[in-house]
Amino acid sequence: MSDLPPLPQRLVIDAVRAALAEDLGRAGDVTTTATVSADAVARAVIVARQPGILAGLPIAERAFRETDARIAFRAESSDGDALAPGTVAARVEGPARAILAAERVALNFLCHLSGIATATAALVERVGHTSARIVDTRKTTPGLRVFEKYAVRCGGGCNHRFGLDDAILIKDNHIAVAGGVMPALERAKAAAGHLVKIEIEVASLDQLTEAMVLEPDAVLLDNMSPADMREAVALVAGRALTEASGNVTLASVAEIAETGVDLISSGWITHSAPALDLALDIAIG
Amino acid sequence: MSDLPPLPQRLVIDAVRAALAEDLGRAGDVTTTATVSADAVARAVIVARQPGILAGLPIAERAFRETDARIAFRAESSDGDALAPGTVAARVEGPARAILAAERVALNFLCHLSGIATATAALVERVGHTSARIVDTRKTTPGLRVFEKYAVRCGGGCNHRFGLDDAILIKDNHIAVAGGVMPALERAKAAAGHLVKIEIEVASLDQLTEAMVLEPDAVLLDNMSPADMREAVALVAGRALTEASGNVTLASVAEIAETGVDLISSGWITHSAPALDLALDIAIG
Amino acid sequence: MSDLPPLPQRLVIDAVRAALAEDLGRAGDVTTTATVSADAVARAVIVARQPGILAGLPIAERAFRETDARIAFRAESSDGDALAPGTVAARVEGPARAILAAERVALNFLCHLSGIATATAALVERVGHTSARIVDTRKTTPGLRVFEKYAVRCGGGCNHRFGLDDAILIKDNHIAVAGGVMPALERAKAAAGHLVKIEIEVASLDQLTEAMVLEPDAVLLDNMSPADMREAVALVAGRALTEASGNVTLASVAEIAETGVDLISSGWITHSAPALDLALDIAIG
Amino acid sequence: MSDLPPLPQRLVIDAVRAALAEDLGRAGDVTTTATVSADAVARAVIVARQPGILAGLPIAERAFRETDARIAFRAESSDGDALAPGTVAARVEGPARAILAAERVALNFLCHLSGIATATAALVERVGHTSARIVDTRKTTPGLRVFEKYAVRCGGGCNHRFGLDDAILIKDNHIAVAGGVMPALERAKAAAGHLVKIEIEVASLDQLTEAMVLEPDAVLLDNMSPADMREAVALVAGRALTEASGNVTLASVAEIAETGVDLISSGWITHSAPALDLALDIAIG
Amino acid sequence: MSDLPPLPQRLVIDAVRAALAEDLGRAGDVTTTATVSADAVARAVIVARQPGILAGLPIAERAFRETDARIAFRAESSDGDALAPGTVAARVEGPARAILAAERVALNFLCHLSGIATATAALVERVGHTSARIVDTRKTTPGLRVFEKYAVRCGGGCNHRFGLDDAILIKDNHIAVAGGVMPALERAKAAAGHLVKIEIEVASLDQLTEAMVLEPDAVLLDNMSPADMREAVALVAGRALTEASGNVTLASVAEIAETGVDLISSGWITHSAPALDLALDIAIG
Amino acid sequence: MSDLPPLPQRLVIDAVRAALAEDLGRAGDVTTTATVSADAVARAVIVARQPGILAGLPIAERAFRETDARIAFRAESSDGDALAPGTVAARVEGPARAILAAERVALNFLCHLSGIATATAALVERVGHTSARIVDTRKTTPGLRVFEKYAVRCGGGCNHRFGLDDAILIKDNHIAVAGGVMPALERAKAAAGHLVKIEIEVASLDQLTEAMVLEPDAVLLDNMSPADMREAVALVAGRALTEASGNVTLASVAEIAETGVDLISSGWITHSAPALDLALDIAIG
Repeated sequence: MSDLPPLPQRLVIDAVRAALAEDLGRAGDVTTTATVSADAVARAVIVARQPGILAGLPIAERAFRETDARIAFRAESSDGDALAPGTVAARVEGPARAILAAERVALNFLCHLSGIATATAALVERVGHTSARIVDTRKTTPGLRVFEKYAVRCGGGCNHRFGLDDAILIKDNHIAVAGGVMPALERAKAAAGHLVKIEIEVASLDQLTEAMVLEPDAVLLDNMSPADMREAVALVAGRALTEASGNVTLASVAEIAETGVDLISSGWITHSAPALDLALDIAIG
Repeated sequence: MSDLPPLPQRLVIDAVRAALAEDLGRAGDVTTTATVSADAVARAVIVARQPGILAGLPIAERAFRETDARIAFRAESSDGDALAPGTVAARVEGPARAILAAERVALNFLCHLSGIATATAALVERVGHTSARIVDTRKTTPGLRVFEKYAVRCGGGCNHRFGLDDAILIKDNHIAVAGGVMPALERAKAAAGHLVKIEIEVASLDQLTEAMVLEPDAVLLDNMSPADMREAVALVAGRALTEASGNVTLASVAEIAETGVDLISSGWITHSAPALDLALDIAIG
Repeated sequence: MSDLPPLPQRLVIDAVRAALAEDLGRAGDVTTTATVSADAVARAVIVARQPGILAGLPIAERAFRETDARIAFRAESSDGDALAPGTVAARVEGPARAILAAERVALNFLCHLSGIATATAALVERVGHTSARIVDTRKTTPGLRVFEKYAVRCGGGCNHRFGLDDAILIKDNHIAVAGGVMPALERAKAAAGHLVKIEIEVASLDQLTEAMVLEPDAVLLDNMSPADMREAVALVAGRALTEASGNVTLASVAEIAETGVDLISSGWITHSAPALDLALDIAIG
Repeated sequence: MSDLPPLPQRLVIDAVRAALAEDLGRAGDVTTTATVSADAVARAVIVARQPGILAGLPIAERAFRETDARIAFRAESSDGDALAPGTVAARVEGPARAILAAERVALNFLCHLSGIATATAALVERVGHTSARIVDTRKTTPGLRVFEKYAVRCGGGCNHRFGLDDAILIKDNHIAVAGGVMPALERAKAAAGHLVKIEIEVASLDQLTEAMVLEPDAVLLDNMSPADMREAVALVAGRALTEASGNVTLASVAEIAETGVDLISSGWITHSAPALDLALDIAIG
Repeated sequence: MSDLPPLPQRLVIDAVRAALAEDLGRAGDVTTTATVSADAVARAVIVARQPGILAGLPIAERAFRETDARIAFRAESSDGDALAPGTVAARVEGPARAILAAERVALNFLCHLSGIATATAALVERVGHTSARIVDTRKTTPGLRVFEKYAVRCGGGCNHRFGLDDAILIKDNHIAVAGGVMPALERAKAAAGHLVKIEIEVASLDQLTEAMVLEPDAVLLDNMSPADMREAVALVAGRALTEASGNVTLASVAEIAETGVDLISSGWITHSAPALDLALDIAIG
Repeated sequence: MSDLPPLPQRLVIDAVRAALAEDLGRAGDVTTTATVSADAVARAVIVARQPGILAGLPIAERAFRETDARIAFRAESSDGDALAPGTVAARVEGPARAILAAERVALNFLCHLSGIATATAALVERVGHTSARIVDTRKTTPGLRVFEKYAVRCGGGCNHRFGLDDAILIKDNHIAVAGGVMPALERAKAAAGHLVKIEIEVASLDQLTEAMVLEPDAVLLDNMSPADMREAVALVAGRALTEASGNVTLASVAEIAETGVDLISSGWITHSAPALDLALDIAIG
């Protein structure tokens, strides 16, 4: 996956340090200190126990290296790679105490993000016969958005807005408060900076017709039936990007993609993807 | 659920501020600023769209109040309550801009934690005819451990260690590095503070027999068959607590509980529980 | 100026606390502690000594209130207002020690940001007979970007990107590294998220012609002569927004605007605007 | 300039990281990620486009190195050096993406601080025929005081107090609240620590006469005419240092210095100095 | 003690929050949560068990109020007051859980700082028949300097430098590296800002004679015998302040003071003062 | 002392940085900058001036290395070693400015922690003829608990709870609020996690008898006479650990230990131990 964006190093370091502090508390890893001598050396592998897509390996590396800079970490797979059960993602070698102390933090990041990549890839695969792209949402785990959006990329998905300040996305609640599709869209166009795109959510073909008068950059078709979606795509006729949202499941996504929408957004891939099972198997050095 | 532990206020404030900063970025909620006037007032309800167990309502409240202290937040349910689709968890009233800006952060916490509580409650219910307790693990989302362990309590579960410094839990990797069950346990007993309990993971009845010689406070029976587990419980005979771990699913948990183990630990309830669907429905004030 | 965006409260609080810590050091305001008794009360006014545009008054208020919550702060002007020499921006009343301790921090923010608003307004005024908008750049003071961009709005200007992640702006250095206008623009279009606009800098009409083939959202005309700029505007013919950049001064801006460009960007308004002279005059309470 | 104080490394690191975070946001440098391949290498020079005095080069270096430790940064000039248009301040070589991502932060520090050094040097040059020293004030940009005071040193100026806790400086407002020059000065002398100097602001020769009775370490002559200043210097007769303040401009500073004052303080050099134009010119590696 | 400097509120808040986090960890006060019901109310008194001088009461108040804003805290004594065994320093009333959770943090600050005030007062009392002042040093507990220097003031002592940047204090090691008293002092005078005082440490009368040539503001007489000190005072003859340092004990301090030195500095009062015994006695509400 | 727990590196770094910032302020070490040239090199030794136990040497090392990574630090002793007057703890070599700037911070940690280790060792030595262990308390200096508990280990002591969340310790105030020994202990047993031990404080043999019914893991005998303590030990008869607390002094500790208690806790070793006198002696390089 050569087109992955770089993981922001400073955010990785800060997140890893916070996670280690959360796990080590004040007294540190009392089990390892008690049972493992300070000069013991260990070798270990990080292996997949399930098939899935890898995401977050540089974060795992950082967790080990942050704990003890003498740990050698050798990646055997890359983020975005498909793993089979038994695939070795990386090899770790160094002070046994540090490897054991960092293990859980490294795996917690890796399993969580690989779970997201795997869920994303499952959707992406099901729409491969269409031109639809799978995109994420702002329904992410607090504190981990940047990493989760990176994992979506690892799974072959695309990123929607990173936050409220990225672009204008007028939702049902904005329309309700603003007093309708037209006033909301008019105000947005007047206020938007010259590099800010505008998307608007519509729940019906009538709302869509109304919205298209003001030429938004994209329209979000919320919870429409496939039939309505198909009609919406025809109505828009390429004048805006179309995004389908709502009821996106592994079972439904192909049918949605076949309506001709440009984008299909899924909150499920970030807020409900089960963790991918990866584990650390240790051997004495 | 009157026996819930209090949510630590300072951690809640810090987590909410970080999540708001993550979502608002530099330019803030440009959609709301553009489409909603500064003096618009709104009323809204937070409603469940699925059945489940509520967790994290005080965090959601803080997300709104931190955004604008003039927002009134009235809880209609309490953490630990069972929600039906349509149940109102809380009512929110105040400046429309602030309600819209805080909505996603509030829901991201609430849906994530309620998902954990709901998954926990599902396991708890299935073992209700036994005395087994469902406990969590350290397989939590980085940065959210305290809140996720609170959510487990909301779902009727119990908490295992909060971190590496809480208690001694000797795992397979420690045993491997230390050179066996006996040396690991001996060192642990020699090093443990007088208020530190010791638990040891065993993978076979032979290991268990060996471990019991040194009288650990608890034994973790890892990935044993129900038959072996039953034998293990008999072998321990109340001299230590028994914890079952591995392959704990909604389908298997009752059978595991019926072996007589005291505790059943599940990583799934924190790392793979799907979010519970709650939403904010707005009405103009 | 009713259409100012809200100042982000949490960023204001953090910036004010950092500035107070920077000024107070460890021992605090030793002069005031020595010369003013703890129960002295004072009234003061913040007055303009020069004509200009006000920006940052809520930050000044926060500086006083953060120092002592008993200080009453009454705004007599609003951000975006034109001030004449002698205009009272605000009245402050409360514990004399706190007013004196917070004075410099409050004024440092206020004079700096009002300077930016004033410089912006001067450019805006000179292009008032055209439809050109004055926009800022990323040439801001480290740590103060959000506030400086707010001050630009107070002066009637518009905001360009808030950072590197807001939108794609392909500059000369990107073109150099990417190997030309076309490859740079092609890659950008392939990589851009669906709500991300693309602007490209061109230094000649040839580059502009090349760029327009790939339909960017905006083009930045860098350091062109007014004659070339006029030709560029004709060449673009409304298919993209046009932004003029380079050599923008009070003397030149009108002529630039008259070429028909949509936007004129100025680094000067943020990196070189002289502070506006405002002072605090105290009276004993 | 061999007598420059060292830049405090930890403050530099923290300021650079904050500035990079401010510019990179969540999604990072999307333009560079899109248009420049991960393995592209670039060489670049930082060149002056205007004559002026360099300040902040180690901060610029840190901005590049913090972004990617593989970047080689070779200084060709030193802080305090006079630059002509075209002078190369430094050469940068390494991963093209990192150089482009760090460029603006590096330049924002460098242009801002060099602007201050240049403005300071202009004042210093005009008083070179006298023994007067140019000193700064606390009218600095919030968050950047240490760096701005360093830049003043690069320009040949001297530093006044770094904050409210450094020394006692009794100003007009303190005198007003304390009830006069004498009570203010008496209290200050009684309260001052044994290593704390005392300076007092006077607006007239009468106030000066009154103040000298109590033997302050320094007197600040506020907004006096050159004639009065000369008389003040005679009146003090070396018993205290004399500092001129107010209406200090390039045009007036020589005449002020010729009155015989020891110090001339200027807020303009920190709050209103225009940025010095330095740029990064890139070449492909 | 009406002339105490104000405790810096922001530093107090930050220190209290850090101390509470240090004590509460992740799971909080598990004992209190387990044994005390959420609605229990308690009244308590903070009482002295030993005679001594109170210092830090506002920090203790903040510890309670930060834990639960509903706690009422009524001071019965003030910082600087002499306490007898049984004296009530303050009364606390409110939620029992919060009072118990905050107790130790509040007392840790209070006992530590009151210990310093008490030790200081003991030295101050012994020199009361002379004009010598007791001053502190930079030998303070990392992280607590501001509070410890405040406690010294509560005990009737005076503050020396708050840090390395406050004033110039040339010590034996500086003299060694600089190559002697004269070169060190010459360089210091050349480099010192106009509001920076200079003190120099001398270990002999010869060094003192040498130092006085360059007219330092103060001289530190290090580890001199009382006889030498008396001679040193005569030699200085009021041209500089004299500070005695080294071997300052309760037994020796009077004799040192009687030599006529202006200041006596003691590291003991901050780094070795035993805590004052104060306790919280609870009663059920 | 091969069984010392590792000092947590991240906490050490953060504490050292905070301490250096506290000492250096904004302007840094103005004395050293003024008197010592930038290229001066120095060698120095850290030597004990008193007999005692060393603790905190890696923190001192970090203070120097954090100030300038070019400083070479060579430990000549190890934490836990007994020092005689004149024993060299470490040798330091490198840039003279950095060594002088870091000296006080390094020593402040080292003298404070070695003082605690020395006090602990004194108690430990006096009970060496018994099996009693000396343990610390939560009466630590705010912000330094982890380091102080490490110093206790250096002195041969053992660690009690690190915070309120480690274990359940029911004290007199909890018993008072809960309504007695039995209800407090019952609730604690019901609420405790399966790896959480329970200790309860008793003030009389009656309370002890009551407490033993519910089989706590440990009992804290508060301020009992040696005779009562002996009886208490007999009464407990090995069914729980016994901890003596109150009136523990160098004079009394042996007698307490001889009663047969398992643990003797002392707040004095952390809150009142005098600093151990170590100093830095410099030589020019």
